[in-house]
Amino acid sequence: MKKIAIGQAGGPTTVVNSTLAGFVKEMKSDFSLFFIRNGYEGLVRDELMEGNEENMNWVLRHQNVPGACLGSGRYPFTDENIEKAVGNLRRHSIEILVFIGGNGTMEALYKVEKAAEDMGYGLQVIGLPKTVDNDIGCTDHAPGFGSSARYVAQATRDISRDLHAMQNFEQVRILETMGRNAGWLAAASGLLKTFEEEGPHFIALPERPLKQLELLSSVEEAIRKYGCATVVVSEGVSWCDGVQVKREKVKGRPILGGISEEVETFIKKELNVTVRSELLGINQRSSSQSVSSLDRYESFLTGITGGKWIKEGRTGMMVSIQRGDDVRYNVDMKPVQLEDVVKAGERVMPADFIDDLERYYKWLRPLVGDELPTYPPPIQRRDLYVDQQI
Amino acid sequence: MKKIAIGQAGGPTTVVNSTLAGFVKEMKSDFSLFFIRNGYEGLVRDELMEGNEENMNWVLRHQNVPGACLGSGRYPFTDENIEKAVGNLRRHSIEILVFIGGNGTMEALYKVEKAAEDMGYGLQVIGLPKTVDNDIGCTDHAPGFGSSARYVAQATRDISRDLHAMQNFEQVRILETMGRNAGWLAAASGLLKTFEEEGPHFIALPERPLKQLELLSSVEEAIRKYGCATVVVSEGVSWCDGVQVKREKVKGRPILGGISEEVETFIKKELNVTVRSELLGINQRSSSQSVSSLDRYESFLTGITGGKWIKEGRTGMMVSIQRGDDVRYNVDMKPVQLEDVVKAGERVMPADFIDDLERYYKWLRPLVGDELPTYPPPIQRRDLYVDQQI
Repeated sequence: MKKIAIGQAGGPTTVVNSTLAGFVKEMKSDFSLFFIRNGYEGLVRDELMEGNEENMNWVLRHQNVPGACLGSGRYPFTDENIEKAVGNLRRHSIEILVFIGGNGTMEALYKVEKAAEDMGYGLQVIGLPKTVDNDIGCTDHAPGFGSSARYVAQATRDISRDLHAMQNFEQVRILETMGRNAGWLAAASGLLKTFEEEGPHFIALPERPLKQLELLSSVEEAIRKYGCATVVVSEGVSWCDGVQVKREKVKGRPILGGISEEVETFIKKELNVTVRSELLGINQRSSSQSVSSLDRYESFLTGITGGKWIKEGRTGMMVSIQRGDDVRYNVDMKPVQLEDVVKAGERVMPADFIDDLERYYKWLRPLVGDELPTYPPPIQRRDLYVDQQI
Repeated sequence: MKKIAIGQAGGPTTVVNSTLAGFVKEMKSDFSLFFIRNGYEGLVRDELMEGNEENMNWVLRHQNVPGACLGSGRYPFTDENIEKAVGNLRRHSIEILVFIGGNGTMEALYKVEKAAEDMGYGLQVIGLPKTVDNDIGCTDHAPGFGSSARYVAQATRDISRDLHAMQNFEQVRILETMGRNAGWLAAASGLLKTFEEEGPHFIALPERPLKQLELLSSVEEAIRKYGCATVVVSEGVSWCDGVQVKREKVKGRPILGGISEEVETFIKKELNVTVRSELLGINQRSSSQSVSSLDRYESFLTGITGGKWIKEGRTGMMVSIQRGDDVRYNVDMKPVQLEDVVKAGERVMPADFIDDLERYYKWLRPLVGDELPTYPPPIQRRDLYVDQQI
């Protein structure tokens, strides 16, 4: 039986274990599987787990569990490390390599395939997409995104309801989302907004510099009309001067974030109201309570599809999701060249979505899964009050 | 028909609108209802909404919606304001006052009833409990707490899974919970922990000063054994020197919080590992995705019960939930004197729960509602790795 090594890389999602489970189920009878621990690091340090019955079952039991059960993480994939990785694969006679990951992982796979070729070792390579940021090119959307978008949409609506009740105590809340340099997640915060009173009242995306006056006038208007304002900012947002706020560097990787605190300070100073900023946090990518059923299904299918393509001998490919142009939502899984994914770079939100969020929400709605209930309007009309002059 | 005014006060929960709906359903045929906007403020400023058909339906449509639909908030309930409040009630000939709220609200109701008596106005007063902090006395637990405990338990487990996958990038996460001076919510973070590898690996409660050496050795041990450590700290925790961290004062009320950042800095300095602290945030009290079905039901029942007692002519009472001593979970709604609730003060966790968390979890389990699935262990045994020396 041919040997396959499969690993998970980058930030986990709630459904990346579904992709792994799909792949394992498709392949376990016909191939000898090896599980790579902790992403590239395990490949370089030769930490492989044998795909025996016990390990296989342990992996499959994670199908609906958040996180990346093999270990994922971040690791500098230098040329030297890539050479080591290929050496390890060759020593174990592993001829097929599969990684579930984001942009960086697709680039890593592309490099590994080339390096193996240069070293005279024929390696079959398939990439399975995963990201909550939805910033992978050459695919309609990526597994992981739908669930996080669902989380952000419902959390924003719920927190905005809470704020409506607390407006004599605090007037503005700033919610910071993930997304790196792409606004997909932050923009999803408005998906469930049905009434103008509901938040978000302002969304700041990394694709457009944040204009101070626009922000202030939106917040002022919302406070005047509805008593409070919910603002959503993506972690990758820059002020007009073009500077992105970075919290710190961890092992060479800048951690974005902190813009919400700057926005908090700014609004407090300018409007003299009570403002609280808050990160939506790791929950965005880990909450088992907000998984999109469609996202879970597509993630599983991505794993199965990758497996099928290996059986067909394909290599240098990523599984992409392409949406049909039917009125009803339907998708095909299609192969795209890793090289093309690398060339496409970080996929930000297109201008026609940014300028017409309703159009974006129409595209987004099926991805967040089962319908979420509509709420009644948060404020009842003032003229229904008892006459105060009785 | 006799007139009733009902309001909501303090921080909202996911189920405080269920209590309101229960009360309204019980009372709407036999009484003339008035809804108080924005808590005590609306009572003092005479902002009442008539319980006509349209408003009633609008309120009832919020039964399963987070937040406090009448508006809640915080407001200084001074003697002068209390006098105004009674004056407004008298002017409208409202003879019955009901508030859904926490400790502060029960004290406020107690004072209003006395003030009305002093002013020669016979006011019937009933309090309906609500708090995510579970710090109301004279009741087994309070509506709102079960849902928040569910949120904290599942969020901690999910975030801990995510950290396991990221341990070559970051080693420690600090999660800060709500709870004010009581540890109920923070301690709930361990409810779903099944394996020693899973977080939380350390929980800091406000009832006990935080010992630096104990914290460090727990974190060090978890990193050594499992590669990472998840720490949960309640917002009300004090270091051994007895000082509580406060973020700021808003209208005279100190906002707790910030201890997680101090713990982050401390662990970074002492252990030289990567640490990220995060507030679990407003979601703890607002997330529609983590409502406990039992909590929602009991909240609704609390409202109905308060209504029934008004019909029976009771006054000066809070609806309390008393647990039977049967093996199976069962409760009775019993009246307790507002005066006794005020005297009981903030209800912190008893020592026998703190010293034996398993006992606490046995008590807590029914309150968080439908069973949450068990996850497989987060780490597969090392000795099942492929021999690295092949």
